[in-house]
Amino acid sequence: MSEPDKTTGPAVVGKESAQPPAAGASLLAPDWLPAPGDANALTDRLWAAGVARDGAGQLTVQGIPAAELAETFGTPLLVVDEDDFRARARAFKSGFEAAFADLCGGADVYFAGKSFLTLSTARWAAEEGLRVDTASGGELAIALRAGVDPAHIGLHGNNKSDAEMLDALTQGVGRIIVDSVDELRHLAELAAQHGLTAPVMLRLTPGVHAHTHEFIATAHEDQKFGLSLAPATGDDDGNVTGRSPASVAVEAALAAESVELIGVHCHIGSQIFEADGFALAAQRVLAFLAEVRDAHGVELAELDLGGGHGIAYTAVDAPRPPAQIAAALAEAVRAATAEHGLACPRISIEPGRAIAGPAGLTLYTVGVTKTVDVDAPDGTTAARRYVAVDGGMSDNPRPVLYDADYTAVCANRAPQATPVLSRVVGKHCESGDIVVKDVYLPSDVARGDLLAVPATGAYTHVMGSNYNALPRPAVVAVTGGAARTIIRRETVADLLDREVDPQDPAR
Amino acid sequence: MSEPDKTTGPAVVGKESAQPPAAGASLLAPDWLPAPGDANALTDRLWAAGVARDGAGQLTVQGIPAAELAETFGTPLLVVDEDDFRARARAFKSGFEAAFADLCGGADVYFAGKSFLTLSTARWAAEEGLRVDTASGGELAIALRAGVDPAHIGLHGNNKSDAEMLDALTQGVGRIIVDSVDELRHLAELAAQHGLTAPVMLRLTPGVHAHTHEFIATAHEDQKFGLSLAPATGDDDGNVTGRSPASVAVEAALAAESVELIGVHCHIGSQIFEADGFALAAQRVLAFLAEVRDAHGVELAELDLGGGHGIAYTAVDAPRPPAQIAAALAEAVRAATAEHGLACPRISIEPGRAIAGPAGLTLYTVGVTKTVDVDAPDGTTAARRYVAVDGGMSDNPRPVLYDADYTAVCANRAPQATPVLSRVVGKHCESGDIVVKDVYLPSDVARGDLLAVPATGAYTHVMGSNYNALPRPAVVAVTGGAARTIIRRETVADLLDREVDPQDPAR
Repeated sequence: MSEPDKTTGPAVVGKESAQPPAAGASLLAPDWLPAPGDANALTDRLWAAGVARDGAGQLTVQGIPAAELAETFGTPLLVVDEDDFRARARAFKSGFEAAFADLCGGADVYFAGKSFLTLSTARWAAEEGLRVDTASGGELAIALRAGVDPAHIGLHGNNKSDAEMLDALTQGVGRIIVDSVDELRHLAELAAQHGLTAPVMLRLTPGVHAHTHEFIATAHEDQKFGLSLAPATGDDDGNVTGRSPASVAVEAALAAESVELIGVHCHIGSQIFEADGFALAAQRVLAFLAEVRDAHGVELAELDLGGGHGIAYTAVDAPRPPAQIAAALAEAVRAATAEHGLACPRISIEPGRAIAGPAGLTLYTVGVTKTVDVDAPDGTTAARRYVAVDGGMSDNPRPVLYDADYTAVCANRAPQATPVLSRVVGKHCESGDIVVKDVYLPSDVARGDLLAVPATGAYTHVMGSNYNALPRPAVVAVTGGAARTIIRRETVADLLDREVDPQDPAR
Repeated sequence: MSEPDKTTGPAVVGKESAQPPAAGASLLAPDWLPAPGDANALTDRLWAAGVARDGAGQLTVQGIPAAELAETFGTPLLVVDEDDFRARARAFKSGFEAAFADLCGGADVYFAGKSFLTLSTARWAAEEGLRVDTASGGELAIALRAGVDPAHIGLHGNNKSDAEMLDALTQGVGRIIVDSVDELRHLAELAAQHGLTAPVMLRLTPGVHAHTHEFIATAHEDQKFGLSLAPATGDDDGNVTGRSPASVAVEAALAAESVELIGVHCHIGSQIFEADGFALAAQRVLAFLAEVRDAHGVELAELDLGGGHGIAYTAVDAPRPPAQIAAALAEAVRAATAEHGLACPRISIEPGRAIAGPAGLTLYTVGVTKTVDVDAPDGTTAARRYVAVDGGMSDNPRPVLYDADYTAVCANRAPQATPVLSRVVGKHCESGDIVVKDVYLPSDVARGDLLAVPATGAYTHVMGSNYNALPRPAVVAVTGGAARTIIRRETVADLLDREVDPQDPAR
């Protein structure tokens, strides 16, 4: 899966490369990180399509130099290549539509708003023919205000409030994804009270979990999400011993007059690169749909296979293109529906990270640099260079939350100094405040330089905090070679806005 | 260290108890969590002093019933017992003043603002005679606006911006804590340019690290903070090979006319219960101060021993009272200064969590409950009850960030149903969204009940996010038996406030 690099220099090589590591490898470097020949190279799959280096070696986004972006908008800055976002949205739409065209007339792609929901990104997704998944009343409000057709919105959440459910019902949201018998009954009651019908998808846990960090895998049986396909030994929700929560929920949904059971849903994890997990989940869920047909004489109309489509954060990550995943999935669905004599339900998926992630990059300004002696595995002393930037865990909590790896390059120039093993850290009062745990950066990267971290479009802006009273960064979108603010930079005044203090002299 | 409980029922027993676990222990429970006799008991050291249960079994804060707080202010709600916060501040102040009175005329206590800085908490700390530590320009702005004397403010940060440093200099901040040669030189230059003098404390890494979660230990050598006392093998900051970064920094600070070197600082970790780590760090740093005296003929005036004082999050945690830590530390300082023939420098410390943490509790409303079959360690199937509440990782990210344990009780009543192993989860679209990983809750806790989670005053409000577009909770302070809002609840309108969208019809 190695792709050509954008620069003519040697690639930042990944696991799949046979190229031997360059000299100068650090004893402290993880196995997967070879010393690069050229620390300024831009590995294609890590960066938005509009990112390149200009003749002077400066990183540009659709031709706009990094230094100009930093000067105009300040740092830290989340820069989104709008055209790249849209192209990735289209690739999912066209890939899945084509793969499922002759099976079920195509497929619906829901942009998983939780990854990066703003008025702009919701509109981009809708304009590219995608629907939008929301995870709360707040996300629903944003999607609606962006003008997304309510019928094309899904509402998720393991514990929706009455207000959220009622809002979805009255706004005409297309699907409410329910993953407990408790909530199903409560929603049915709420809908009945208001003379409304709830369009329900039941979220199932098919017992398939992707190989990924435990904290972000979401299909273990021991989890808050979903209705198990496995028989329960008995529980406090009134399930009959020996029946699966999924079958109890289907029966309850079919019996409730205020519920329209439109289909089932499953979600098997995060950062998934291969199709086999999705395919197995589809097989198991389709077998369950055959059981439902046999028990109730009903073939459910829709099957959502969830999100979790992975992206490249470092050069060793090599996810497959959407069309390839789609083709493998269609084959699995074709086989399973044939086996069970089922008409193929309408398929939908929920990519978020795979659309928003690679479209974004974060620009930081370097401040303090220091080199620290560290005990190396071989008993000697090795050096690690710490490069501190003006953001950190407040603008990208994924490294501290999930021990997530990223990479970085010097953005305002292409330094020719020897690459040295570096750790890019933030400015928070916390030792875990790491931006890039391990990366070779030119040894002369210093105060005032700009670093660019790729693949930061997803789960950064939406997970940002004000830890250490740091205002959150601005977000700019680039299209047609021009950059504009879509989320303004937060200010200290904003941070004080929720204070209620009669003694405050400024009030 | 077992303390009496507030209720007359059997205690929620900890590791230190010889009481055998009650019947009904789950195979899925961690070793440290016995099945309680009374799941409604309130273990003293987990709760603010004003928390009790009333005659009807309802949890109250200074007499105000939990249900009244929830009704008036909504949930999730961070409730701070102001009197408890102030009492803990006073206990540090008096404990350390008394212990160091005859050594160095007392001690200064800096409230570590990063744990829970608001206009109100900053003022409470100042009114109780504490100083305030800040970690950024934002925190500095909040402390100043709260009316804290600039001379009593410290500014931390491994990578302060020029604006932050200049702000501290011009506002007359009492101490700027510097932890790299790079920043020291830059600060000296900045101060010189503006004709100002920078009051500097140098942060040292004495090679002592508390036994705690790796992500929050902050005195490993391999970290972004501090100047090592160990000789460096050479680095890019211009240190002479064989000298320690600490000694290089002292020399540079003493040589810079725009720097007043007032002392040194160290910080050895987080959630520390015992004094021995602090004592060892003090010994090493005092030995270094003797070297400084021998080399430069200067005895530095101040020694800050940092923060990291632990609190009880569950019944197994038994931190020592401040006076006990202070006495042990004073003994170590007395011995080390005597050994080196040093006058005792003025001592300061930086507790944050230990003041703000136990003063706070979070009230949540229960929504969905479900029981899930889980494979038990012995090969059988065991049940885990999931209790979902209306908040989660956005109002308390510590469980997902640090795998931190908490506990919870039913707050609106004292249910007599059998306690069952439960997992309190939030409402976020993330399987790691856990509020309390393991706790025995009465089996009939259900939709509409209130849960109270103790010890949530620190690192919750300040680390909150808007993940899944969830508005952040209100914070109320309780004193004199009355509750008032100190931070208003965030709204979806607030979330949209930073959107810049010319197509937004609402603009």
